[in-house]
Amino acid sequence: MGALHDCHYDLGLENGINLGGCVELDFEQDPQTVVIEDAVKVLLEGLGEDINREGIRKTPLRVAKALREGTRGYNQKVKDVIQGALFPEVGVENGVGQAGGAGGLVLVRDLDLFSYCESCLLPFQVKCHVGYIPSGQRVVGLSKLSRVADIFAKRLQDPQRLADEICLALQHWIKPTGAAVVLHCSHIHFPSFAPGCLDSDHSKWVKVVVGSGSGSFEKDDSAMWVDFLGLLRHKDINLETIHSRTKASCWCPSRSLKTGPSKSGMVAAVGSIIQSLGQDPCRKELMGTPNRFVKWLMSFKDSNLEMELSEFNGIPLRTIGRVNYKEHIKSELNLSLWSLCEHHLLPFYGLVHIGYMSDEEVNPKGKSLLQSIVHFYGFKLQVQERLTRQIAETVAPLLGGDLMVVVEANHTCMISRGIEKFGSNTATIAVLGRFSNDPAARSKFLQSIPSYSL
Amino acid sequence: MGALHDCHYDLGLENGINLGGCVELDFEQDPQTVVIEDAVKVLLEGLGEDINREGIRKTPLRVAKALREGTRGYNQKVKDVIQGALFPEVGVENGVGQAGGAGGLVLVRDLDLFSYCESCLLPFQVKCHVGYIPSGQRVVGLSKLSRVADIFAKRLQDPQRLADEICLALQHWIKPTGAAVVLHCSHIHFPSFAPGCLDSDHSKWVKVVVGSGSGSFEKDDSAMWVDFLGLLRHKDINLETIHSRTKASCWCPSRSLKTGPSKSGMVAAVGSIIQSLGQDPCRKELMGTPNRFVKWLMSFKDSNLEMELSEFNGIPLRTIGRVNYKEHIKSELNLSLWSLCEHHLLPFYGLVHIGYMSDEEVNPKGKSLLQSIVHFYGFKLQVQERLTRQIAETVAPLLGGDLMVVVEANHTCMISRGIEKFGSNTATIAVLGRFSNDPAARSKFLQSIPSYSL
Repeated sequence: MGALHDCHYDLGLENGINLGGCVELDFEQDPQTVVIEDAVKVLLEGLGEDINREGIRKTPLRVAKALREGTRGYNQKVKDVIQGALFPEVGVENGVGQAGGAGGLVLVRDLDLFSYCESCLLPFQVKCHVGYIPSGQRVVGLSKLSRVADIFAKRLQDPQRLADEICLALQHWIKPTGAAVVLHCSHIHFPSFAPGCLDSDHSKWVKVVVGSGSGSFEKDDSAMWVDFLGLLRHKDINLETIHSRTKASCWCPSRSLKTGPSKSGMVAAVGSIIQSLGQDPCRKELMGTPNRFVKWLMSFKDSNLEMELSEFNGIPLRTIGRVNYKEHIKSELNLSLWSLCEHHLLPFYGLVHIGYMSDEEVNPKGKSLLQSIVHFYGFKLQVQERLTRQIAETVAPLLGGDLMVVVEANHTCMISRGIEKFGSNTATIAVLGRFSNDPAARSKFLQSIPSYSL
Repeated sequence: MGALHDCHYDLGLENGINLGGCVELDFEQDPQTVVIEDAVKVLLEGLGEDINREGIRKTPLRVAKALREGTRGYNQKVKDVIQGALFPEVGVENGVGQAGGAGGLVLVRDLDLFSYCESCLLPFQVKCHVGYIPSGQRVVGLSKLSRVADIFAKRLQDPQRLADEICLALQHWIKPTGAAVVLHCSHIHFPSFAPGCLDSDHSKWVKVVVGSGSGSFEKDDSAMWVDFLGLLRHKDINLETIHSRTKASCWCPSRSLKTGPSKSGMVAAVGSIIQSLGQDPCRKELMGTPNRFVKWLMSFKDSNLEMELSEFNGIPLRTIGRVNYKEHIKSELNLSLWSLCEHHLLPFYGLVHIGYMSDEEVNPKGKSLLQSIVHFYGFKLQVQERLTRQIAETVAPLLGGDLMVVVEANHTCMISRGIEKFGSNTATIAVLGRFSNDPAARSKFLQSIPSYSL
């Protein structure tokens, strides 16, 4: 089992804060880091980027840091976490019963984790519920259940294997009556931008619920699962959904990307990244990963959005909605946004809201154009501040020049690196024309935007 | 400003995972660690504990770790975080407007942080919204706003000073047009257990919303606040609530603890802890802190709960509700729980649910007894597993022996140390009598428990 081998623990990767002086240097000079940096440079050049541009000059180092942090579990030992955290605790003294150090279920719920998808190298989010039934009159410190789960999450993973590995490690090191794990996993699902199919109903997430049990949880029909799932009431899961372990189809949406030749230099570069993380690129599950990652990445270069957008060039203002320069504030809300953070090569996604001054709403063709503009500027290496400005500057001439753009987005880089701020999101504003000098108009538009949640 | 002085960054404290071999040793041998450990031993002895008991033998070291992690911000430099993360970004090109690298508000919302209350040394939770208006055509990496906020949160703090320090540091190092911070802070509020006043309406939290602005946000009536608060719509805050900066009364509930003599040895021990964190115990805000902390801690020893409980000794079963040995499952739900984690000397709090087999509910006097039993076992050094068992064993003879106890609790030690799992909570179960062999009865009871949230 992966968790049980002995490796040293890499301090420099502990949290991702700038570690200052010597440690940072060590990390930068580490051959593994250099391999990843070189590979990322190949990928950036493949995207047609100037790798010396200020904004992305340090992207290779940032990607290397994020990937090594995100896979630090390969160098962590479950034994180190558990030992010293097993405490004697007596059980029920008389009569029939289970509690305390003997048989009473202990369940830590709603641990936020992230992991890296072995099929496409993108991070996925995990809501983890982990429990065990003490035996031998000893209990483990509660935080250790979280730490053990994290050791396996910080690897290239598949949801079911992740659940199995956490479960097996707890069984092995705590030696409880039983251990069980349920994971809610969410994998970002970028839309396909084949010409003419910007699907507005596209779901942002592929979600799966997986479970794993050992000891008294080993059998799916064990009475122990009744208690475990009873404590997850209101989460809409049951034995049937979590125990359908048929792995007929991989959950990763990149599996359904259209196949075709990828640039071999870029594919080889991704292979070298996998190798530098200590993983064998020839392992069955990783065989197609470099190709899939490159296909996904190149969709930010190859998409046909530019062409679609050009169809609208020269369309006069009135065809997307008659704009009169009145004081009425109209808005186009909840345009969907997909983009790629140029600092970390990680997705960000969210909603774009456009406010303008007019008597009339834009017509359906206009709505479609606005969504295309958002996708056009989203589907490239970006920062949210620039994206907001570019949308504003492009849309302004179409909607009369008095414009306010609000972008609300979740950044994968805010959860899948050291800071792990799972609930956070970022809002940016661009204002043009009369909105600039009219706080009341800005306020009115902002109040019209629905509460943000994704 | 505190953030600006130069100190080395302490790697060993980065995350609180067991760091293995030499680093752990260094930390354990560090004179500051030893001072805190010795002080915690004095506190444990003051509570009447055997400091060699297995469960708490390492508590002094764990407390030292948690406190040094929780105040690591004193050794971190804002400069290190910001520099290297300022990126050139052009602003709006033509006409009137603000966006991108020039004047467009950037706001990172809903960052989960924790800080330590300088008035009582307990951690408090912070939901942080931090924003700035770029100038000089450069923007800062989004994660840096979180990291800077964290540097100041990881200190002994007061909400308003925390907001001010984050804001000033951003203004100083990013040199934006303006910077602003809004914090929702929640401080746990233990009930007073004076005899006869177990207040069931007691609120678990003292909450405040504070704000701070610099540059173009400096004036409270600045139009910039319109945008900032507009992006926090649906959070029920406004300029009046956040800008009432009258510090007439400190928010910390320990301020209202009854005064009286504290054990001088324990008070001196807490003073030495504060000093070992590099803080001056004679600083105005810290002057009464050791005394308040000791008073709070001793409430876990001195409360009159034991006496109250003894009043009920020998009360026959029928006086709290006639129990017939039928198949009907009755329940007492949502009994409030307050306790102190013996591994970290940090609060945990939540709800206790008791299921039993009877034809009748317990009467009001019985309800009050059950709540007293929960408080009795809660108000001491505890682990949740033991607490669950003790409640079950004590209640069983009163309710007929067929019993199920579910405890759902949030552990401060799960958020205020390295793992920072803000949304997580822990459920434990004890079952006695016929519940042990009746999964259907257990399931029925579990389904009757309302969804947990605190």
